[in-house]
Amino acid sequence: MIEGHNYIGGEVSAKGVTIFSTFDPKTNKETGWQFYEATKTEIDDAVRLAEEAFKTYKHFSGKRKAEFLRAIAGEIEALGDELIDVYVKESGLPVGRAMGERGRTIGQLRAFATLLEEGSWVEATIDTAIPHREPLPKVDIRKMLFPIGPIAVFGASNFPLAFSTAGGDTASALAAGCPVIVKSHPLHAGTGELVAGAIATAARKTEMPKGVFSNLNSRGIEVGKHLVMHPKVKGVGFTGSMNGGMALYKLAAARKEPIPVFAEMGSVNPVVVLPSALEENGAEWASKYAGSIMLGAGQFCTNPGLILGIKGSSLDEFITTLGTEISKLEPNCMLHPNIHENYEKGKKEIVEQNGVRVVSQNNGSVAPNHGRQAVLTVDGANFLNNPKLHQEVFGPFSMVVQCETAQELTQVLHALEGQLTGTLLGNTADLRKYEEVVEALKGRVGRIIFNGVPTGVEVCPAMHHGGPFPATTDSRFTSVGESAIKRWVRPISFQGWPQELLPEELKNENPLGIMRNVNGTYSKQEI
Amino acid sequence: MIEGHNYIGGEVSAKGVTIFSTFDPKTNKETGWQFYEATKTEIDDAVRLAEEAFKTYKHFSGKRKAEFLRAIAGEIEALGDELIDVYVKESGLPVGRAMGERGRTIGQLRAFATLLEEGSWVEATIDTAIPHREPLPKVDIRKMLFPIGPIAVFGASNFPLAFSTAGGDTASALAAGCPVIVKSHPLHAGTGELVAGAIATAARKTEMPKGVFSNLNSRGIEVGKHLVMHPKVKGVGFTGSMNGGMALYKLAAARKEPIPVFAEMGSVNPVVVLPSALEENGAEWASKYAGSIMLGAGQFCTNPGLILGIKGSSLDEFITTLGTEISKLEPNCMLHPNIHENYEKGKKEIVEQNGVRVVSQNNGSVAPNHGRQAVLTVDGANFLNNPKLHQEVFGPFSMVVQCETAQELTQVLHALEGQLTGTLLGNTADLRKYEEVVEALKGRVGRIIFNGVPTGVEVCPAMHHGGPFPATTDSRFTSVGESAIKRWVRPISFQGWPQELLPEELKNENPLGIMRNVNGTYSKQEI
Repeated sequence: MIEGHNYIGGEVSAKGVTIFSTFDPKTNKETGWQFYEATKTEIDDAVRLAEEAFKTYKHFSGKRKAEFLRAIAGEIEALGDELIDVYVKESGLPVGRAMGERGRTIGQLRAFATLLEEGSWVEATIDTAIPHREPLPKVDIRKMLFPIGPIAVFGASNFPLAFSTAGGDTASALAAGCPVIVKSHPLHAGTGELVAGAIATAARKTEMPKGVFSNLNSRGIEVGKHLVMHPKVKGVGFTGSMNGGMALYKLAAARKEPIPVFAEMGSVNPVVVLPSALEENGAEWASKYAGSIMLGAGQFCTNPGLILGIKGSSLDEFITTLGTEISKLEPNCMLHPNIHENYEKGKKEIVEQNGVRVVSQNNGSVAPNHGRQAVLTVDGANFLNNPKLHQEVFGPFSMVVQCETAQELTQVLHALEGQLTGTLLGNTADLRKYEEVVEALKGRVGRIIFNGVPTGVEVCPAMHHGGPFPATTDSRFTSVGESAIKRWVRPISFQGWPQELLPEELKNENPLGIMRNVNGTYSKQEI
Repeated sequence: MIEGHNYIGGEVSAKGVTIFSTFDPKTNKETGWQFYEATKTEIDDAVRLAEEAFKTYKHFSGKRKAEFLRAIAGEIEALGDELIDVYVKESGLPVGRAMGERGRTIGQLRAFATLLEEGSWVEATIDTAIPHREPLPKVDIRKMLFPIGPIAVFGASNFPLAFSTAGGDTASALAAGCPVIVKSHPLHAGTGELVAGAIATAARKTEMPKGVFSNLNSRGIEVGKHLVMHPKVKGVGFTGSMNGGMALYKLAAARKEPIPVFAEMGSVNPVVVLPSALEENGAEWASKYAGSIMLGAGQFCTNPGLILGIKGSSLDEFITTLGTEISKLEPNCMLHPNIHENYEKGKKEIVEQNGVRVVSQNNGSVAPNHGRQAVLTVDGANFLNNPKLHQEVFGPFSMVVQCETAQELTQVLHALEGQLTGTLLGNTADLRKYEEVVEALKGRVGRIIFNGVPTGVEVCPAMHHGGPFPATTDSRFTSVGESAIKRWVRPISFQGWPQELLPEELKNENPLGIMRNVNGTYSKQEI
């Protein structure tokens, strides 16, 4: 049952007077659940408890933290249908998506547990002493990664589970050894409350310090601001809009002690349809992309919002087929009336731009908050001259840019801002032939895909879900996959430290059997 | 011979009208060499050429980049005595130091070459496809690190070679595959010119693209500002003052596309003398620390500026011996009259603070610009109440804080800002007994030393020369040692990419024989 309270260090708390409800976009009505916005005292308590918990939690072994993560996964599973029902009600997303996202959430918690059990992620690096080196002796130095402290996580509107309360940011921070304070997303505060309860139960069952996790409700921006400015908070994870992400980034940079903000702020995910793809299987790709654009009502950060090709009859056919195929699909419900309204507004603004032609636009009457798909087209010169056309329209929308030549296409890619993904469709011969196009795309993205769709982000060690600014605020780090743990740690070197007091990871005998860099060579051997 | 020109993409250039000289602090006179400050056109040319060079340089194999780095080392060696003479004249530092620093500079260029030849540093990570996985097939994803683009490097005043023109920042950026534009330090522009010439020669001999390196002279802040704001510059390395570092950090964060600034901004490097050290070998430590404080006229970023102990007769003895030993040492020449003046001013300001007592202060007459050593002492309560006492005094200076109890000592450590290093002197039993002290120190530093001095920063894979803010702007990265290369790269994932077009590092057969993470397991095997 949804109670509307916050979780402060494992205890329920509802001291505030600001109350808000969540919204069911399908029925177009409030859910009726009432949430208590966290007060300053509650926020400060959450941070104080996190700071206190950090003193012990940072020393916990990988095995012990893994037990906690596995317990969270188990407790989320144990929430059963209630979680799915609340998720669907608060998001307007279908049951299948809810179940898929729950699977992903549980899967990534377990993936981090496996990473911790294996243990090599700490990048243990050992340089042994050379006492008789000339002109100066070499001292013994050993380095590994350590957690940085309490982390603030901002839930994402478009992934109520996998990028929210117990999503990738929380899982990776807890795995790193950092307590987490979640600023729950107001659109799905009920989903967040259920998951927060599951984490609190898991923490109790596995005897974690109570401040290891807190969950704060809030309707507006004040709770998040207070949290990011709190001197004891040492890092921030965020997935959402450019405005939201940049506001947090600037706040954090202006602190007396600046802290890292890992904001993933969306992307238009350019797709280049090379001539071979158009000639060999253009219709097939058009149909696949119609589906990818419509997936989750176009509310994925990897939604293909921009498709690029070289002018000609094959591209014309592709565009026509894409328009026909997408028009056959049923519009889906978007997350919230505001998001739906922004989508309609953004779409209209692009349609009105100079040189833009509508290929396919659903103007029919639909159920409330359903996102009506649109495919537009424009030529390369118009696109290059109009930065408005480079912006993301969050929803089931895509624009095909028709370039005169491969040179113009390359120019368009260079003119784009940083992106999460870039895709190339074609055959291997074309990849070689259009090397400059490939290089230009590689320079703008975090993940480059050959003959696929950008939607669908695998949780695995090789995943990089990040990209040059403004796709993210720090292109060196990913928010999906095991490497996401690297955001919440920093190296510390131990010089001349006594063997028996070194962390297990750095001891000569390598008791954990992890991979280490010893005197420049990778090895699991003892020293 | 010193000509005073800039190097723009390997060519000498002197288009400016602003001219400045360097200064010999020993003779207290200008060196007479005239330097032409780089013009906006010259800066823009350097960046344009760097951007152009990046297109090819980023694709060069590790072996080829290693040849370039080894050639630079060779050309610096070939400069012979002229380099040593100019270094000594512009810095006031002794010949032995000049030769030692040259050795370090050459050594670290070769260490990066070795790293590139080995090749595993790119963190190749491979997840192979599982086409029949349920409910969805798993795609093939492969990730490694790629260079980010042209890097601006700011030379440091206190290391004319090892942290300047061909220092750690330049060596690591070139190793990563990034062209470098150095903003030469105005105090040793002649040394910078000679080294820049060596790099230009090495680039020519190893057939590097001409924009791979440029060296810009400047007296003030304008050249550096223009460089950091240039949209094609993608990262910044800096070693110097808090004011300088924070100015660059803020400029870079306010850009349309914010870029990372790795600023190393100094530190007081707290040293905790545990009771066992005082009792067992206090006099020996006092004598060693007198030397460490005086090293290089106290102008190391790892200078021990703060010594902490628990009140008692053993600490009194230690303080007395430290004072006596340091008074026996000869003052050394500082880098520049301004630096010397700031030192005398900073020292005076601290002496005048409430509760501060002078243990030893050299008030004798000395040659121009020589830094007269001082050891002061204060009790824990006064230190805690006065943030002025926490600030670095750049020079041969240290302050001993006498704490009432271990609790107060811990409190002092918690009150300190982030530091590059922290040191503990004592025996292993004390390390166990004072666990809270150790933990507090570990939380504030990038490198923690047992029974040693913080001065002397080994160049090796396990070195972390970095630390929590304000020691550096990003505690996750080091500016010394092989890991410094990680500042100039970002991961890119390849999804479903054809084998033959993957980078060598990611191909199934592992042609480079590097260590890789394959489906979660570390291995050099082919797939």
